[in-house]
Amino acid sequence: MDQSLEEVKGEEKAVYLTEGEDRLAPAERILPLVRDAFDQSDYGEVHGEIQELHPSDCADLLEFLNRDERGRFVDVFGDDMHHETLTYLEGTVQEEVLDRLQPQQLAEAFRELDSDDALDVIEDLDEEERERVLAAILPVDREVVRESLSYPEESAGRLMAKEFVTVPLEWTVGQAIDYMRASRDLPDDFYDLYVVDKELSPLGVLPVSRVMRSKRGVSIETIMSTDLHIVAPDLNQEDLAYEFRQYNLSSAPVATPEAGMVGVVTLDDIVRVIDEEAEDDLFKMAGLGAEDMYSRALQTARSRFPWLTVNLATAILASLVISMFDQTIERLVALAVLMPIVASMGGNAGTQTLTVAVRAIAMKDLTSANALRFIGKEIFVAVINGAGFAALAAIVTLFWFGDSMLAMVIAIAMVGNLLVAGLAGALIPLILERLNIDPANASAVILTTITDIVGFFAFLGLASWLLL
Amino acid sequence: MDQSLEEVKGEEKAVYLTEGEDRLAPAERILPLVRDAFDQSDYGEVHGEIQELHPSDCADLLEFLNRDERGRFVDVFGDDMHHETLTYLEGTVQEEVLDRLQPQQLAEAFRELDSDDALDVIEDLDEEERERVLAAILPVDREVVRESLSYPEESAGRLMAKEFVTVPLEWTVGQAIDYMRASRDLPDDFYDLYVVDKELSPLGVLPVSRVMRSKRGVSIETIMSTDLHIVAPDLNQEDLAYEFRQYNLSSAPVATPEAGMVGVVTLDDIVRVIDEEAEDDLFKMAGLGAEDMYSRALQTARSRFPWLTVNLATAILASLVISMFDQTIERLVALAVLMPIVASMGGNAGTQTLTVAVRAIAMKDLTSANALRFIGKEIFVAVINGAGFAALAAIVTLFWFGDSMLAMVIAIAMVGNLLVAGLAGALIPLILERLNIDPANASAVILTTITDIVGFFAFLGLASWLLL
Repeated sequence: MDQSLEEVKGEEKAVYLTEGEDRLAPAERILPLVRDAFDQSDYGEVHGEIQELHPSDCADLLEFLNRDERGRFVDVFGDDMHHETLTYLEGTVQEEVLDRLQPQQLAEAFRELDSDDALDVIEDLDEEERERVLAAILPVDREVVRESLSYPEESAGRLMAKEFVTVPLEWTVGQAIDYMRASRDLPDDFYDLYVVDKELSPLGVLPVSRVMRSKRGVSIETIMSTDLHIVAPDLNQEDLAYEFRQYNLSSAPVATPEAGMVGVVTLDDIVRVIDEEAEDDLFKMAGLGAEDMYSRALQTARSRFPWLTVNLATAILASLVISMFDQTIERLVALAVLMPIVASMGGNAGTQTLTVAVRAIAMKDLTSANALRFIGKEIFVAVINGAGFAALAAIVTLFWFGDSMLAMVIAIAMVGNLLVAGLAGALIPLILERLNIDPANASAVILTTITDIVGFFAFLGLASWLLL
Repeated sequence: MDQSLEEVKGEEKAVYLTEGEDRLAPAERILPLVRDAFDQSDYGEVHGEIQELHPSDCADLLEFLNRDERGRFVDVFGDDMHHETLTYLEGTVQEEVLDRLQPQQLAEAFRELDSDDALDVIEDLDEEERERVLAAILPVDREVVRESLSYPEESAGRLMAKEFVTVPLEWTVGQAIDYMRASRDLPDDFYDLYVVDKELSPLGVLPVSRVMRSKRGVSIETIMSTDLHIVAPDLNQEDLAYEFRQYNLSSAPVATPEAGMVGVVTLDDIVRVIDEEAEDDLFKMAGLGAEDMYSRALQTARSRFPWLTVNLATAILASLVISMFDQTIERLVALAVLMPIVASMGGNAGTQTLTVAVRAIAMKDLTSANALRFIGKEIFVAVINGAGFAALAAIVTLFWFGDSMLAMVIAIAMVGNLLVAGLAGALIPLILERLNIDPANASAVILTTITDIVGFFAFLGLASWLLL
């Protein structure tokens, strides 16, 4: 049994992933070793461990370390790190590591990266850092990166790989096979051949397996699949992801009518986009800006400040509504006790509707074709739940304060506010979308402003009208 | 120029996706045609349109229709629909369509589906419906589906395709090529060959292109890649998705030590998992259960009721806190006016921290290795923003009520509540995760309960201590 098989057997045991096993991630396993090595300034064995670490795990390790340890890690283990580690790092940590790497380490790392990976690192840098990195890499790579940077951010042009294999429409299977065997500047591994015309416009696609299993004399044209979804380089990544999801694509050629095919986007790029967009929507709904877990505290505080300021303003608006009824509250302090209930239930019920709407709009499931039906349904849901919680709130009020009129006031205010909440939760994202504003961005704050104001106004207004 | 090329040229123009173009989705384009056909009971041309629709677009069309139209659509166009349409439908609509299809239509549809697609439809059905569908399909397919159903829900076994290509370790490239050329029961297209030992345990993987570009005499063993991530069929889909993301996998063999390789999971399965998990987290944070956009209103209302009930209970808890200070409020009604500000700012600031933590835990970026650092940073952020908003709130209060002691009270309460909010936003999800409870599920309601109670208690308590 030779050595390569030994390795295989060993590896097989190591990565058999079974449910319920508590696995320690490689980064977590090595973290204490690194800290011990730092304590004792004895790095001997750790060098080897770092060299064998998958770049993705090495990136995790760097992220687990604190800022000081990170600097030291790059100084000591910079040459052991796999060059792809850079591409797996979160923004803040990535900049730190790039800053710390020596120019020749930087140049080496980028020389070995694929063009799309290199771009992925460079596009996130600020102007100054970007120039420093560009200066360190080979002129030929620099040109490629600069060209890619000319496409808009978050576009197909930024995501695409520039390595792909094309064959002319006129070829036979035999010609294609001979070409693949003989040509030296093809990518290491590839899965599809793109069939192009004389202007290099993509006409069809062909899995390598289909070529291999056809007779040599068969014409490429007859076996290629023409179900192509050609994408322009400026297409936004969100629309691109939609196209992949909707049509179950594994790859899409990127082309312009003038230049023909210039790249290919594959499903692994789309996975990254989907993760990004999902996080984006989740964060926007909570009023979070561009931060990551590793941003400095001061920077994080600053990025969260604007949203909280908007919330302070809307809270003050709600307070103004309350202050309109200060004399009513003075005479019946139970109102002050109960009023947050109505406002809070409206906020929560509205957020449910809002979340469904924001997600459905992002997935293109909610469009003008079914908006009216969605709004109608949400109103119906609000009426049902409004009635239920009106009854519950009235019972609680009756037992607590023994005041049937007060119970009636809270019940009416509850139905009203839940109805407004359902309507607002459905309408706000639809209106924002129509105005070309990302619904995830502003929906939540508008909704709670409305439910707070309506909640306080309905409850206190009814109370001053009916009870005093 | 023959006909196939004509088609290609036509298609090329049709799907050149460019940024900024307002494209009408195919389902939206055909929707009015279908409604016109219904109005005039004249279906002639629409049959052809439906036949040419991509199954994914046909599913969208069905979802855009209302319940009555949907039934009629299935009756009229059931035979025109591509059989894969079923796999693209949301749960509620899927059941409606299955219910409406004739048994022989059902049998036909499932006969043409891949085993994993058929499973995907069947696994979501309730017991009765499932038996009806199983009875309609071929016995051999039924066996395959039943076997897959024996794996846990949301596991690799449910996701995997059972069609894959294996070659023995001992073969040469020439033998592999001859096998691929001669064998008739291989999948239509495939991208990787799996290298297995005599027990069918996976040892390596080999892209078809690499086989094709190697000399016939070369041994498979020397060119295969041994970087395999073998997965047990019971592995949870969330862990599976993590493995794909972490190691940039395009596929993973599913195997057990006893049975050897039983299937393969590919990246397109993972895309679906990622979408599901992202929606799941987003919905859970808003207290949404298992609903989709097409659920009936009554069912939707019922599924949202429990979360709102929990919120009612916590709102009443907050009211109890307020009622402890009713005499204070009676003497100084400005307290009732201002108290929601402190509570609401705590809720919003805490939600920011919470959202970052929930997402980071889901992505395995926040673990015990960096939890303390994360908590420390969030406290620091809370202190900075707490100080800022304490000052702002104090200034507003001073101008509004001209009461410097009241301004001091709101300032202290604000710092305190934002500090608690930051701490709770970081700790709650970490503790829930440690208790094996999905942090997305319960974090938000626990957090706002805490920030409401602390907010009201700190503000009103300080006020009654310092002002009266």
